[in-house]
Amino acid sequence: MKNIFYFMLWAVSNHFNAQQTDSSSYTLKNKGTDRIMKSAKHNHLYQHGIVDAFIGGLYKGTLPLKDLKSRGDFGLGAPDMLDGELTVLDGQVYQTKATGQTVTPGDQFKTSLVFVTFFKPDHIFTIENKMGYHSALQEISKVLPGKNSMYAIKITGKFSHIKTRAFPPVEKEPFPTLSSISDRQKFFDFSDTEGTLVGFYLPEYVNGINIKGFHFHFISSDGKQGGHVLDFDGENLKAAVAVLKSFTLETPESKDFQNFRFEQKNNDALEHLEQGK
Amino acid sequence: MKNIFYFMLWAVSNHFNAQQTDSSSYTLKNKGTDRIMKSAKHNHLYQHGIVDAFIGGLYKGTLPLKDLKSRGDFGLGAPDMLDGELTVLDGQVYQTKATGQTVTPGDQFKTSLVFVTFFKPDHIFTIENKMGYHSALQEISKVLPGKNSMYAIKITGKFSHIKTRAFPPVEKEPFPTLSSISDRQKFFDFSDTEGTLVGFYLPEYVNGINIKGFHFHFISSDGKQGGHVLDFDGENLKAAVAVLKSFTLETPESKDFQNFRFEQKNNDALEHLEQGK
Repeated sequence: MKNIFYFMLWAVSNHFNAQQTDSSSYTLKNKGTDRIMKSAKHNHLYQHGIVDAFIGGLYKGTLPLKDLKSRGDFGLGAPDMLDGELTVLDGQVYQTKATGQTVTPGDQFKTSLVFVTFFKPDHIFTIENKMGYHSALQEISKVLPGKNSMYAIKITGKFSHIKTRAFPPVEKEPFPTLSSISDRQKFFDFSDTEGTLVGFYLPEYVNGINIKGFHFHFISSDGKQGGHVLDFDGENLKAAVAVLKSFTLETPESKDFQNFRFEQKNNDALEHLEQGK
Repeated sequence: MKNIFYFMLWAVSNHFNAQQTDSSSYTLKNKGTDRIMKSAKHNHLYQHGIVDAFIGGLYKGTLPLKDLKSRGDFGLGAPDMLDGELTVLDGQVYQTKATGQTVTPGDQFKTSLVFVTFFKPDHIFTIENKMGYHSALQEISKVLPGKNSMYAIKITGKFSHIKTRAFPPVEKEPFPTLSSISDRQKFFDFSDTEGTLVGFYLPEYVNGINIKGFHFHFISSDGKQGGHVLDFDGENLKAAVAVLKSFTLETPESKDFQNFRFEQKNNDALEHLEQGK
C-alpha cells in the first residue's frame, strides 16, 4: 500500500457545509433539519431500467435525460436504440457513438438504462505509481470498507493509453440480444489523453438488475473521446470514492418491459421456506 | 372474471386530495408543488436488508422500528434474532412469535429484514365467491397491469380458515441457515377469524434481494393472531392493490453483512459483454 498516498477525506465537514440550490426532495423545516436533509441528497444511487432486460434487447429509450437532473449528476447509461454509450459527469450527459464521435444529446433524448448519483466523495487518494486497469482497481478495492456495499468511483488524470468500446445503433424490431451482436462493437485506443473514468463498484446481489463489480465509462477533458472502458494505463491518477447510502430502482412502464421474460433465478431453499416446508 | 366485482378505483382523485400531516421527505415550495409532492410519498417500496443474507443466517436486528416511521406504514419483516414474523399495518408493527402470541414491540426493537410502503390503493375490488389461497391469488394476478412491476396488496375480510407459521428465536452464533432449521417452524390453524393479509407481489428480477411472487403475513382484527401465511379460505374478501412506483434498498452497515458471502449469480453473457468480448 506504500504506493498510495491517502488524503482520507471522510468528508463529514463537506457533507454539512455543502452549497446546494436544488433541494426539491427535502423539507426545509428549520436550519438544523435543513443542513442534514440537504446533505442527504448525495450518494444515493438511482437506476432506471434493468440490465438483464437491456442485454435481452430492450434498447428503446424510456426516460428523457431531463428526468435525470433531479436524480444525479454522475453515472453511466445506454442511449436510445443502443446507439453508443452514455457517461454523466458534473451533470452533463455525453454520448459516445460507434463512429468514435462524442456528442451531448438534448434533454428530450431518451435512455433505456441509466444509473446516477449526486457524487460527493468520502475518500480521495492518489495512485502514485504507473498503473494499469487491473492493478488500479485492486488498489481501489483495498480502500472499500466492504464488498457488500455500493460505491461510486471517479478516477481522474492522464492516461498513456485507454481502450474503450461503443455499440452501433440497432435499427428495427425485433431487436437482437446484445450477446448476439457483440461482433458489431467498435473499439477505440486513445494515447496520451486526459480525462475522467466515471463508474461504480456494485455487490454480487445486484447482478442482473445491474452489473456486479467495477464498471467504468470514460470521458476526456475536451469531451471528444469516450466509451465503455476495457483497459487503461495511467500515472498519478486521482481516485475519489463515495459510499452509496441507498439504491433506488424505477422500471419503465412500457409494454416491452412488462412483456419481457426474465430468466428464472431459482432458489429452492427460499421457495420451500416460503411454503412452510 | 364475473365473480369479481370491480370498483376500479384508479385513485387519481385520492392521490391529489390526500390529507397528510407527515411530509418530512418533501418540499413545501408552493401549493401546486405541495399537492404533487405529498402524493409522491405513497407506494414507494422501501427495503432494509437482503433476503439471501437473512436466510443465510443474518438474523440480528440492524434497524430499529422507529426508523420505519418515515419509510412506510404497511409491510412485512423479520424480528431481531428471527423471533417470529413481523407485520406492519396502519403504522403499527406486530410480532407473531412461535408461541402463537402476537405482541407490539417498542420503537427500539430491531428488525434484520423489512419491506414497507405508505400504502394507498390504486385498485379495490371484492372477491365475491368463497375462495382459497391459490384461486384468490389467481384472481388478483388477473388485475395486475404487468408481471414485471411491484405491487403492495391488502386483503381484508372473514376467513373460515387460515394457516400461518412462525419461527422460534435463534440463540447463539454461529447461526444456522433458515433451511437447516425449517423443522423448528410452528404452524397455526385459525378458524372463523377476521383480519388482514398484508403483502406484496414482486417480479422475478428481485428474487434473492427479496422474494418473487406473492408473499403475505396475517394479522387478525383483534391483533392476537398472525404469522406468515401458508393457506386460507375466505368469502367476500376485499382486495386492495397499489402499483409500487419505485424500490429503494438500504443494507446494514454491520460487519456480519459486509462479511456475508452471497452465492455467485453468474451471467456469462453479461461478463463477456462487460469485457468487450
